Amino acid sequence: MNATERLTRQIGFVLEAEKLKAVLRRTSPVGAERRENSAEHSWTLALMAVLLAEHSNRPVDLDRVLQMILVHDLVEIDAGDTFHYDAAAVATKAERETRAAERIFGLLPDEQGLELRRLWNEFEAGRTAEARFAGALDRLAPMLQNFHNAGGSWLRHGVTSQQVTERNGNIVLGSERLWEFAVELIREAEAKGFFAGDDAG
Amino acid sequence: MNATERLTRQIGFVLEAEKLKAVLRRTSPVGAERRENSAEHSWTLALMAVLLAEHSNRPVDLDRVLQMILVHDLVEIDAGDTFHYDAAAVATKAERETRAAERIFGLLPDEQGLELRRLWNEFEAGRTAEARFAGALDRLAPMLQNFHNAGGSWLRHGVTSQQVTERNGNIVLGSERLWEFAVELIREAEAKGFFAGDDAG
Repeated sequence: MNATERLTRQIGFVLEAEKLKAVLRRTSPVGAERRENSAEHSWTLALMAVLLAEHSNRPVDLDRVLQMILVHDLVEIDAGDTFHYDAAAVATKAERETRAAERIFGLLPDEQGLELRRLWNEFEAGRTAEARFAGALDRLAPMLQNFHNAGGSWLRHGVTSQQVTERNGNIVLGSERLWEFAVELIREAEAKGFFAGDDAG
Repeated sequence: MNATERLTRQIGFVLEAEKLKAVLRRTSPVGAERRENSAEHSWTLALMAVLLAEHSNRPVDLDRVLQMILVHDLVEIDAGDTFHYDAAAVATKAERETRAAERIFGLLPDEQGLELRRLWNEFEAGRTAEARFAGALDRLAPMLQNFHNAGGSWLRHGVTSQQVTERNGNIVLGSERLWEFAVELIREAEAKGFFAGDDAG
């Protein structure tokens, strides 16, 4: 494949990626009423990685963290965004997303598609320092948004503080300091009434 | 400043950056009617950098390109998005954005804010290989979107093919191959009637 053919396939992938801007999450940007899309969410995570890398438990290769974050949600173009507190959707998530990864990364020149797919697999597996740190940011970002939106999607969807604590506990694998911060944020959110009553869970 | 104080300032910056999601550009995501915001635009550029780095005229440090792209539009939180074909707005852009950079990067721990501000300055100056490649992507992305939106903001705002060619000629400084691609795209767009008549310019 020559450079022009490679470019044609890469541009095709860029155009496909535009669709991520129409995939809506449950959370809203801070101060906004509308739901956020997965493209702008990915930007937030990438910016957080640049700013917060020093708080990772283990040193990370920032370049790999950034690439991982930039592609981590692309499978949602086919599979949709899965709300973390929707057990039925979570059960079928892996299979739906694997099929999506095959199609979407398959648009690229073979070895480039494979490389990005490997990064996506690494993110999903959550075993390397880079994947754990990226995963911690992916969980922390909506917590920050909901807190600064006076409960946001927690209240809208009847999510309890216990659910948030359990669902986001993996933050500690990526960053003990960010987890301490998150625990404090949950405590303050409880005091402010930003969660659904735990009986409702 | 200890780690907790640093984290507090960094999180304050992340919250401030949320406002970029409310800064609207003239272009629309491919296939959408709504205007795109500068946060999702920044994600597109970062993804393009990962995919297209091989087409840069000179080898680039991808990590620096990505960091530059992720922060390049933050000044718009105060200064707004400047439409490239609005001469009056372009005339005051530098001064408005410099003031914005001072305030926004000033929210971070000093040396971190300075480092990101230096990256932003480097992007704006457009002299290094990284800045030229990032700048080329920043120009190419809306061209792709307008082309695949049947003229998009070119037609809506009376922009001619001559204006697009002149305004985006700097792509060649970052990537001769992407510039060739852009020239071909302009030619096809002309044939399809995606520009305002050149008399209207």
